[in-house]
Amino acid sequence: MALLVIGSDRAKAFGETAATFAPDRDVRVWPDVGAAEEITAALAWGPEPGELAKLPNLQLIVSVGAGVDHLFRDDKLPAVPIVRYVDPDLTGRMTEYVVLHALMHSRRMLEFRDLQAAGIWRYLPEPAASEVRVGIMGLGVLGQDAAAVLSRIGYRVRGWSRSLKSIDGVICFAGEKELPDFLAETDILVVLLPLTPDTRGMINAGLLGRLSKFGRSQRMPGPVLINAGRGGLQVEADILAALEDKSLYAASLDVFETEPLPKSSPLWQHPRVVVTPHNAAESANESIVRYFLDRVADIEAGRPLPNIVDPSRQY
Amino acid sequence: MALLVIGSDRAKAFGETAATFAPDRDVRVWPDVGAAEEITAALAWGPEPGELAKLPNLQLIVSVGAGVDHLFRDDKLPAVPIVRYVDPDLTGRMTEYVVLHALMHSRRMLEFRDLQAAGIWRYLPEPAASEVRVGIMGLGVLGQDAAAVLSRIGYRVRGWSRSLKSIDGVICFAGEKELPDFLAETDILVVLLPLTPDTRGMINAGLLGRLSKFGRSQRMPGPVLINAGRGGLQVEADILAALEDKSLYAASLDVFETEPLPKSSPLWQHPRVVVTPHNAAESANESIVRYFLDRVADIEAGRPLPNIVDPSRQY
Repeated sequence: MALLVIGSDRAKAFGETAATFAPDRDVRVWPDVGAAEEITAALAWGPEPGELAKLPNLQLIVSVGAGVDHLFRDDKLPAVPIVRYVDPDLTGRMTEYVVLHALMHSRRMLEFRDLQAAGIWRYLPEPAASEVRVGIMGLGVLGQDAAAVLSRIGYRVRGWSRSLKSIDGVICFAGEKELPDFLAETDILVVLLPLTPDTRGMINAGLLGRLSKFGRSQRMPGPVLINAGRGGLQVEADILAALEDKSLYAASLDVFETEPLPKSSPLWQHPRVVVTPHNAAESANESIVRYFLDRVADIEAGRPLPNIVDPSRQY
Repeated sequence: MALLVIGSDRAKAFGETAATFAPDRDVRVWPDVGAAEEITAALAWGPEPGELAKLPNLQLIVSVGAGVDHLFRDDKLPAVPIVRYVDPDLTGRMTEYVVLHALMHSRRMLEFRDLQAAGIWRYLPEPAASEVRVGIMGLGVLGQDAAAVLSRIGYRVRGWSRSLKSIDGVICFAGEKELPDFLAETDILVVLLPLTPDTRGMINAGLLGRLSKFGRSQRMPGPVLINAGRGGLQVEADILAALEDKSLYAASLDVFETEPLPKSSPLWQHPRVVVTPHNAAESANESIVRYFLDRVADIEAGRPLPNIVDPSRQY
């Protein structure tokens, strides 16, 4: 009975933390797998394809992140339960990110920073949160928590998901058919979708072109995109084109088609783009390792696992 | 029976809005006062000293802002009820400002923006809100609303006021005696105090030097100052010195000793200072005028007035 940490660039640190929390456990860090048949559970982030299939007695895979697309890139992924990381620490950090970037744009901070750099004292009209409609794509644990705080701040919150949800204070839309209506009423689009074959490349010119025409009549100059989901959801050339033709006012992007974002990307220097290094919800090592050990204890005690991924939907 | 708008650079717009909302009212905009004895109520922001004293039948002064220090600069201020502007619109905007700037600093956005400008993809350790203690000075309507949202986001919130308050989820401190203890446990200091003879210049070297030594052991590089109260509360030379010797990590300032902030101020170009043009809670004209007309209706109907200022405390 041994545990494996595999794939993450923080694997070594995870292993050390696990050794502190559970000194009696045999925790190994890939590629030092030892006897493969002894491994019963793996904590994984983007493992080398085929590596997990080499573990004949594997009973559980825990994803380091809330998203699991990094696992489904492995076409030999063993048919054992996969558990997504869902944790108050990660959820709280994601909500911080979404709220920070929604406020940064509705309060026009990029423009105020430019004015400051130029030494110019100037009022700009700013909408109150109550004048701004935030649309959240993806209404899982993360989307729902962000929705609750955004509502408390006063934003008018709506949400879109594959299947219809019912959430207090959130106007919910579902499926392809209701997507245009959802987008037409969205001033700030928050993307928290899982990356699956269905959602890949979804944030493209067609979608961005359907966002609200807020800027024409209101105090904010146009709609905003916040993507804290996965880079594979977005078409960066389309985002840049939308910023160029002003159908998009600004964007905050935490994720990119290629990460790290290549030096050559025009996103780095765009005056209305905020680039962050996929750190929207970087959880503390301690929280992740604690969660992994708790799930191992679940299978050992025969308790049902939480947050199991449906392999057919890939989330 | 006539109403007067006086002092604000938005006076003309207020007058026009009042004419729309209450076409039967006689609303005048200073200096076109007409027959002074006809004026019964004034909506005022920093009126010319002595001008209000010329209105023999004045029954009510409504302050355009939540703070009333701009009225007490008039040493001939008539002894009629003064009502502060307290409104969900202003409160909500102030909470937006406080939350935005708390998150901006705890999530190290100034540093991430610098990294972006340099095209550098780099993680920085960021504390979760639950690791950060926000201390709010001034626990009136604005301080309490900000406290509630900051708590919901996960920050550990404490508050300080002249007299002890009891607020759910907020550790409260009061008076001079408890100020050092309050400051020692404050990582982000939010100043929402009224400007009075007692509070003038209070945000000085002595106070800043007592803030938490957070940066030494934690993930954020040091304490932060957010002043959205009044510029007269702060000693800008002391803030700059604290930033210089790193006892302060960063500051967001919406208010200044002199406004507009003079071109010559080193605050404009400081890499760890966010300057905003006293717009933290710039309320919509409509809300202010509606509030003024409601208070006029209160006195005409003999209803008690809300949010009356105590002239002895000047807030």
